[in-house]
Amino acid sequence: MTSATTAPLRIGVAGLGNVGSATVRLLQDNAAVLADRAGRPLLVTAVSARDEKRPRDFDRAGITWHQDAVALAQDPNVDVVVELIGGAEGKAWDVITAALKLNKPVVSANKAMLALRGGDVLAALDSSQAALLFEAAVAGGIPVIKTLREGLAANHINAVYGILNGTCNFILSTMTATGRAFDDVLTEAKVLGYAEADPTFDIDGHDAAHKLALLSALAFGGMPAVDAIKISGIRAVSSLDIAFARELGYRIRLLGIARRRADGAIEQSVEACLVPQTSPLATVEGPLNAVYLSGDYVGKVLLTGAGAGGKPTASAVVADIVDIARGQHLPLLGQFSAPTKIKMAAIGERVGRYFLRLQVIDQPGVIADVSAILRDCKVSLETVLQRGRDPGQEVSVILTTHDTPQAQMDAAAAAIAKLSSVREAPHVMRIEDLS
Amino acid sequence: MTSATTAPLRIGVAGLGNVGSATVRLLQDNAAVLADRAGRPLLVTAVSARDEKRPRDFDRAGITWHQDAVALAQDPNVDVVVELIGGAEGKAWDVITAALKLNKPVVSANKAMLALRGGDVLAALDSSQAALLFEAAVAGGIPVIKTLREGLAANHINAVYGILNGTCNFILSTMTATGRAFDDVLTEAKVLGYAEADPTFDIDGHDAAHKLALLSALAFGGMPAVDAIKISGIRAVSSLDIAFARELGYRIRLLGIARRRADGAIEQSVEACLVPQTSPLATVEGPLNAVYLSGDYVGKVLLTGAGAGGKPTASAVVADIVDIARGQHLPLLGQFSAPTKIKMAAIGERVGRYFLRLQVIDQPGVIADVSAILRDCKVSLETVLQRGRDPGQEVSVILTTHDTPQAQMDAAAAAIAKLSSVREAPHVMRIEDLS
Repeated sequence: MTSATTAPLRIGVAGLGNVGSATVRLLQDNAAVLADRAGRPLLVTAVSARDEKRPRDFDRAGITWHQDAVALAQDPNVDVVVELIGGAEGKAWDVITAALKLNKPVVSANKAMLALRGGDVLAALDSSQAALLFEAAVAGGIPVIKTLREGLAANHINAVYGILNGTCNFILSTMTATGRAFDDVLTEAKVLGYAEADPTFDIDGHDAAHKLALLSALAFGGMPAVDAIKISGIRAVSSLDIAFARELGYRIRLLGIARRRADGAIEQSVEACLVPQTSPLATVEGPLNAVYLSGDYVGKVLLTGAGAGGKPTASAVVADIVDIARGQHLPLLGQFSAPTKIKMAAIGERVGRYFLRLQVIDQPGVIADVSAILRDCKVSLETVLQRGRDPGQEVSVILTTHDTPQAQMDAAAAAIAKLSSVREAPHVMRIEDLS
Repeated sequence: MTSATTAPLRIGVAGLGNVGSATVRLLQDNAAVLADRAGRPLLVTAVSARDEKRPRDFDRAGITWHQDAVALAQDPNVDVVVELIGGAEGKAWDVITAALKLNKPVVSANKAMLALRGGDVLAALDSSQAALLFEAAVAGGIPVIKTLREGLAANHINAVYGILNGTCNFILSTMTATGRAFDDVLTEAKVLGYAEADPTFDIDGHDAAHKLALLSALAFGGMPAVDAIKISGIRAVSSLDIAFARELGYRIRLLGIARRRADGAIEQSVEACLVPQTSPLATVEGPLNAVYLSGDYVGKVLLTGAGAGGKPTASAVVADIVDIARGQHLPLLGQFSAPTKIKMAAIGERVGRYFLRLQVIDQPGVIADVSAILRDCKVSLETVLQRGRDPGQEVSVILTTHDTPQAQMDAAAAAIAKLSSVREAPHVMRIEDLS
């Protein structure tokens, strides 16, 4: 059996926001159990952040302060560099490359850099003896990177479905529980700290897309590529959509989806979808994250937990440090061949069921006009739902379809939008019948 | 970055039941992606089972047949030994020790041996250079061993709650969905292959206890000890219990629970419990397994998936083989110090809420008698539920309590059982308010 070495592993933490501070605190709080599990003490020897004067909730004794994070990476008393600065460009990149150049392992939570500059990171790793681990970049404390890279390594992964953005899930599940409107719940999310002052990056799906790109790269062995993902967010989801979805037995969730088609091409999207209320994903409430993985041997595995926050994310950062201390040294994406470009499926070919909400003037012939368009576009209806009648006034009509290629659905929706009795573009969402 | 070596890792599989056959098949089916992920080909060079003549659903070409599994372990063309024979004694033990003696890594799904003879296994590992991995021993394809040993390694684990036996979960969730009786559903479970001909080991909680002992050992760093677990099964759960629990907003699940008290002692039990219908554990249906882990930094993480079956379990076996090929070499329980005996909490001190079902003769004074006993035992009631009145006939009375030490609850139940108007011993179950 491996025996413990006693020299501490010396850790430098660059970036002391919520996650950075919690990481240092965790390494101090749980030092004894960590040393036992890692086989050697894990010691924070250096930190770096903008403001040295700011009070920190960890013990500064014995820790060198670096004003320059690159100097931290180069500090001879630092063996492992933890990059928690963030951002695809600038200082974070400089820190990571400085560390790898010195063959120092890197732990990073930088999803933007990995998702947008995966090729650059792989090139930097190619010319280094060190590894880079990034459990904290996706789904906070949930060990989903390790699960894909190691736990399910025996499988061809068929599909990944993720609730990857806590802001969006909080908003959608609160709208569902309370019937309140999007803007109202968004305001509450800001007050509770679940949404940024400028929430665009979260609610328009970009944050989830970065994370999906990383999961997809691991699942399918491709280079991370955010631009190969169809991205839409949750701004268009109204309380009407939520109420009607509920009536039909569904919940609305922002899902990141990466799915292998029979021909090997990968469909990738981030969008608000209807999932059956009995689906495990429908029970993921509030700011939680969840990832649903489907493999050829394991079947379906679901992981649920806190997707953000200082302490859960620090748990993921420190798990990576423990792995390094234990000698783990794997390729970035868990495969030894060079990752290839993902063969992307044309999203218009994607087949599935759809939910449409139309706001129409309640007058004779509207349903006939809509039905004729759907027939002409070869979209087959499953249900039609209209609540109440209010002649001459605007009412909602809800349609659900049988399996339909997305291009046909889009064509039908565009044609329906042009009808004079239809007051706004139809709101179209996919139905994902996940059990 | 690590570069791939090309020499194959040669694998011997001892035991060709469902899991063994699926393991060989997986290694053959997914050989290309496995070689890429492992850094070298994974090649089955030897197998062993009782009946060489029996047809197998994998390619026998190039695979040596050993009539004796120990000879397989000693075969110089075997680098890694996969033990899928099972049982705490006998051949499985001989195979594992023969392999470790030759410093060959072992992958095993043998929960009985690890749970009942953890000390022996640790001693065998102590005198070997090789490691033993056992992901497949708990919860089939769900990577829960890796999650505890690595993914959540940064945390002090506070609690583990597991739905660890698919047979029991199938029976309980089917009883809930259909209202059918225990015996009736057990018969169906046998037909469907979810229950053994002799289901004792599963439905009386012993299988779940073996798995809980392993999770508890990993979570708390102690030696696995099944005898430190309070075990009861699901035979006593009636369709009345299920219906009343449902009416109170709960579902009944067989839970393995290992929980650290404030004083560090560990409460361990396997028993049928009520969980809120909104709890993620309540949505785990059919033969699925789930493990809910609570850590000081990560918060709560839930893993759900197939807990048994050839293919999912083979996924776990082969993940361990990939880990070995990648050079993973950790202590059995992920800690470098010697595991100590778990400091067990006296189960009578355990505090919690309870559900009681009484079958009483509907006559004046029964509730008063029961209430007096509960008052004398300092058990505080939360709800009392009696459906219908049928003077002189047997009716169910359902009680739920506020937090109560188990010893007081047991004393009250024993006293209630002696009342002449009470027709059978009260059925007492814990309420676990997991959110």
